Amino acid sequence: MPDPVTEGFAVRVARAVAVRGPLCAGIDPSADLLAQWGLPDSADGLRTFGLRCVEAFADVVPAVKPQVAFFERLAAAGIGALESVMAAAREAGLLVIADAKRGDIGSTMEAYASAWLDPSSPLVADAVTLLPYMGLGSLRPAFDLAASSGRGVIVVVRGSNPEGRSIQEAVTSFRGNGELFHGPSVEDVLLQGIGDLNRGGLAVPGTVGAVVGATLQPSQFDLAGLGGVILAPGVGAQGGTVEGTARLFAGCPPGGVLVNVSRSVLGAGPDLGALKRTASAACEEMSRALG
Amino acid sequence: MPDPVTEGFAVRVARAVAVRGPLCAGIDPSADLLAQWGLPDSADGLRTFGLRCVEAFADVVPAVKPQVAFFERLAAAGIGALESVMAAAREAGLLVIADAKRGDIGSTMEAYASAWLDPSSPLVADAVTLLPYMGLGSLRPAFDLAASSGRGVIVVVRGSNPEGRSIQEAVTSFRGNGELFHGPSVEDVLLQGIGDLNRGGLAVPGTVGAVVGATLQPSQFDLAGLGGVILAPGVGAQGGTVEGTARLFAGCPPGGVLVNVSRSVLGAGPDLGALKRTASAACEEMSRALG
Repeated sequence: MPDPVTEGFAVRVARAVAVRGPLCAGIDPSADLLAQWGLPDSADGLRTFGLRCVEAFADVVPAVKPQVAFFERLAAAGIGALESVMAAAREAGLLVIADAKRGDIGSTMEAYASAWLDPSSPLVADAVTLLPYMGLGSLRPAFDLAASSGRGVIVVVRGSNPEGRSIQEAVTSFRGNGELFHGPSVEDVLLQGIGDLNRGGLAVPGTVGAVVGATLQPSQFDLAGLGGVILAPGVGAQGGTVEGTARLFAGCPPGGVLVNVSRSVLGAGPDLGALKRTASAACEEMSRALG
Repeated sequence: MPDPVTEGFAVRVARAVAVRGPLCAGIDPSADLLAQWGLPDSADGLRTFGLRCVEAFADVVPAVKPQVAFFERLAAAGIGALESVMAAAREAGLLVIADAKRGDIGSTMEAYASAWLDPSSPLVADAVTLLPYMGLGSLRPAFDLAASSGRGVIVVVRGSNPEGRSIQEAVTSFRGNGELFHGPSVEDVLLQGIGDLNRGGLAVPGTVGAVVGATLQPSQFDLAGLGGVILAPGVGAQGGTVEGTARLFAGCPPGGVLVNVSRSVLGAGPDLGALKRTASAACEEMSRALG
């Protein structure tokens, strides 16, 4: 019988960030990057790309984030390559965040949770990203499965892209005494709900995190009260700056934020030394900025 | 060079519904159903389950909807089984709706579109379901790729589950002259946006459809103006009735609605004749109700 889980995902992330810095390096083998790296557009190309990333990042960053879409593009063969890359990353001691952005309900959500969070799955990650459009409550099977083995779920709440703002900033409303009242925004309701889960709504605190784009201004919710890991995309290609990121997350506890970088590191090309130097420099820059 | 596409997804669905009725049969090999059917919890079990469904449904219903999560649960091997099941369904002349509920931005969204809508992909479907949390505009790569080959995208707008209501009913807002104005709900903004895409925002009308739960009351948007296929879950296990479904979609054009049933048909068990009779009866019942 396994020991009871006493350490949540947030604690594991904070410990890794304390050692190496707050960077999460993307593993994004798009068709463009495969070509740029001189690799074939095939499952072998995906596998070589991913294993090279793992080798380069292993002693340099705390976490990697394989983007599932780029593997799924090549169907079963691509997912096979992802299995190899994730196994290598686990073996190398990296935290693995599967960027899958799944979301569904009931037994279907249970099946997605099983794919990405069950310790016996070939695709098991330390955390998986999920989309909350069908409701935070619909993701509950993933929260519970994650908590049972000290893993995490990172809910996309505030995306770094502009197209999602009108949905994420929409105002929740409710009827009482025949009148319509307006509540907080969708994103703030979700952040509050995640905070509640981390403060006692789940077996293990720190299980549920949130994606909060580094390109944004603060919302009403005080991120210091999230109690879970923040994954911050948007630095670099999408216009987010290191300084803006540091300001946005200034109130968060130490080790509570992972800044995602993908293109700016992967653009260094396939040379192992160049990749390692670029990732290391990005990690040090973020460490200095986020203190 | 292929012929230019003149016929959108909605026209193809309407023609199939006119022949066979408005039913979309789910292919949902959950662990529970595999056990109930006496099949192993393995990729072989998934494949056998899916191929049996295709054989039973082929001459009876217009469309099938494999639930991707139940295949993904077994990682690359499971996705390999899904490839076989989808190939068999295409071969049998069924419309195939991949229930993947993907959603992302930029080149990542392009990769998901490629996986499910590129004619050269082993997973190519007639349509794929997507989640709009990151914005309807973020799904554009899928709309464009679908339109280029007469395929479709079905956006989850109004889920049949209660947990998503507060997000989907939240009220969009905007600032003008220093004041905050409230607009339509998230779900009505999305339905309006889909209607606009189908009325000229895309190369081929009828490319984009919507999931609208059969368990719901009407929203403000008049579904007769959607211009795309409605996929309606929620009949049966989730409490939706055939009569309620007929009322909710009374104003929609003929052949514009596919009612999804999964558990009530798959519960008939593995016997081919029983499966076929159950699917046929469900399809006839829906045909009578939706006229």
